[in-house]
Amino acid sequence: MKSGGRAGFAEWRDCFATLDPGLELRYWDEALLAPEAIDYALLWDPDPGMLARMPRLQVIFGSGAGVDGITADPELPRHIPLVRASIPEATQRMGEFCCWAALSLLKDARRMALAQAARRWDYFEPEARAQQRTVGILGLGNMGLRSAEMLRAIGFPVIGWSRTPKVVPGVESYAGAAALDAFLAHSDILVCLLPATPETRHIIRAETLAKLPQGAGYIGLGRGMQQTLEDIVAALDSGHLSGVVLDVFEPEPLPADHPLWAHPKAIVTPHVASLPTRAERATFIAAAIAAHERGETLPNLYDHARGY
Amino acid sequence: MKSGGRAGFAEWRDCFATLDPGLELRYWDEALLAPEAIDYALLWDPDPGMLARMPRLQVIFGSGAGVDGITADPELPRHIPLVRASIPEATQRMGEFCCWAALSLLKDARRMALAQAARRWDYFEPEARAQQRTVGILGLGNMGLRSAEMLRAIGFPVIGWSRTPKVVPGVESYAGAAALDAFLAHSDILVCLLPATPETRHIIRAETLAKLPQGAGYIGLGRGMQQTLEDIVAALDSGHLSGVVLDVFEPEPLPADHPLWAHPKAIVTPHVASLPTRAERATFIAAAIAAHERGETLPNLYDHARGY
Repeated sequence: MKSGGRAGFAEWRDCFATLDPGLELRYWDEALLAPEAIDYALLWDPDPGMLARMPRLQVIFGSGAGVDGITADPELPRHIPLVRASIPEATQRMGEFCCWAALSLLKDARRMALAQAARRWDYFEPEARAQQRTVGILGLGNMGLRSAEMLRAIGFPVIGWSRTPKVVPGVESYAGAAALDAFLAHSDILVCLLPATPETRHIIRAETLAKLPQGAGYIGLGRGMQQTLEDIVAALDSGHLSGVVLDVFEPEPLPADHPLWAHPKAIVTPHVASLPTRAERATFIAAAIAAHERGETLPNLYDHARGY
Repeated sequence: MKSGGRAGFAEWRDCFATLDPGLELRYWDEALLAPEAIDYALLWDPDPGMLARMPRLQVIFGSGAGVDGITADPELPRHIPLVRASIPEATQRMGEFCCWAALSLLKDARRMALAQAARRWDYFEPEARAQQRTVGILGLGNMGLRSAEMLRAIGFPVIGWSRTPKVVPGVESYAGAAALDAFLAHSDILVCLLPATPETRHIIRAETLAKLPQGAGYIGLGRGMQQTLEDIVAALDSGHLSGVVLDVFEPEPLPADHPLWAHPKAIVTPHVASLPTRAERATFIAAAIAAHERGETLPNLYDHARGY
C-alpha cells in the first residue's frame, strides 16, 4: 500500500480492520521486503518497476479516479487488472466544486476576494444569470454527469463533449474530435473533467481557448498535463478569457513564483476538488476485493487501449 | 423617480420608453419641483416627507424587494399602495448567490483565498459533503423558496423557518417564535433571507447564534439591521461559528477599519447577492402600472401591519 505515506497508513489500517478483518495490510516499504506475499496493491504513485516484482499480485487499485501515476510505470504488469477508484462521495464532491467554481465565475468571486483583501466596498452592477451562461463539460464520466445535473438545477444550460457519443437527458452532447470546435464555440464556461490520456495532453491550449466565445470562463478539474498554463495566462491577459478556476497544475504544487497566484482573474485551489476520505475509499476497495474473491467482475477497470 | 441617481435615470428612461412609450418619466429633483403632476413614484430611499406632497400619487414602487428605505419615511402616505419589486431574475440571482455562499462555506473558500493571496499551496483533507450539512433558511418568501430548491438539488438537506406555517415539498418547515430554537439547533448553515421588520431587528445576535450547532456557518443576505456584527465576530473568534458569508451590513458600506474585512473566517461581499438589472425592474413595474390602469390588483403589495 502506497497512498498517503506512513501517517495515512494507520488510518487505512483502521478503516480496513472494520470493513474486512481478514485483510492483512502492509505498508509499501514492508511490502517491498517481501513482494512475493502481496495479493492486492493500493497505490497513488508506485516506485517504477516494483509492481512487476510481485508474482502473486491479483489486482492493482488506484486510490483516485485518475491512475496516471500508476500507468506511468514503464514496467507496469498490464495483464493484471487495474481498478480506478469510483467513489460516489468523490463524484458528489466534484459536482459541488464544479457548481462552486461556475458560480464563482458568474458572480466574479475573484473580484470580490481582491476587494475584501483591500478593505474596499467594491459595489458592481448585476452580472449575468445562470440561464445566460452555457456550461460546456469536457468529459461525461460519472463526475461530468453529476456536475451536469447539479449545474442544470441551478439554471445553467449544460452541453457536454465526450470521446464516444453519449445520451444525457437535458444535456446537448457532442462527440469525437470533429465535434470539438462546435462544442467549444457554445461553451461560455468550459469545464475540463477529462481523464489523463495521451490524447488529452495539452488539450487546453491557445488553439482550443481561441474557439471559446469572447469573455468565456474556464474551470480546470481534470489533470495539470491537459493545460498549457502560459496560454491560459495569455488568454486572461488579452481579455479573451474573463476568468478561470484552476484546481490542477503541472507541476503540483504550483510554484510560488507562478504569475497565476496573483492574477486578478484567476482562482487557484490546491487540487482539492474531489477528495474522497480514506474511509470512503476503503469501503469501495474492500467491496471490490470481496467481489473479486467471490469470482465476480471487478468494477471500473482501467482500459489500456483507451487510456482510462 | 429616485433610484440609481442621475446616471441611472437615463437608463431607466430608455427601458420604459421601450416598454410603455406613454409613460412620462421625471427624475426625482424635477418631480419635486412639480409634485402635483406625479402619478407613480419609483424609489429606493426617498427624501422624508416628499411623497406626502404628491396629491395625485396612485402607487409607490420600491426598486428592490426590501422597501425599508421607503417605510422609514415618517410622513409616508400609508393609504397609497406600496409595491415591493418581485422580479424573477432577482429571485434567481439570490438562489445562485445562496448556493455559492453555502458551497463557499462547505469547501472553505476563505481559507483557499487566503492561501492564494500568500502564494501558498495549502492542501487540506476532505471536507463534509453537502448531504452532511443541513441548511436552515430563515424566511420562506420567493427568494427563500428558490434558494431551497437549488440547495436541495446540490445535495444539502434544507429546513426553513417562517413567521406563519408554510408547506414546502422536501423542506422541513418550522413556524413562529416558539419553533425558532428547534430550527436553529438543526441548522448547520444558517441563511438569513428575512425582510426588514421591527421583529427581525438584531435577530442574528449572540443569543440566537449560541443555539446553532457548534461549528455552524452563517450567511447574511437579508438586511444589515438584522445582524449584531460584534456578536458574529465573537462567535467566529470562539470557534462556535466556523465561517460566515455576509452581503449586508449596518451601516453600508462596511467601514474600512471593521475587523470583518480581514477576518480569516469571513467572506465579505458588497450587497450584490440579488441585483436585478434596470431593464428587469422596469419590465415588472411597467406591467404593474398597466395592470393598475386596467383596474386589476397590484402585485406584491406591502402590508404595513406585518411589515413586508
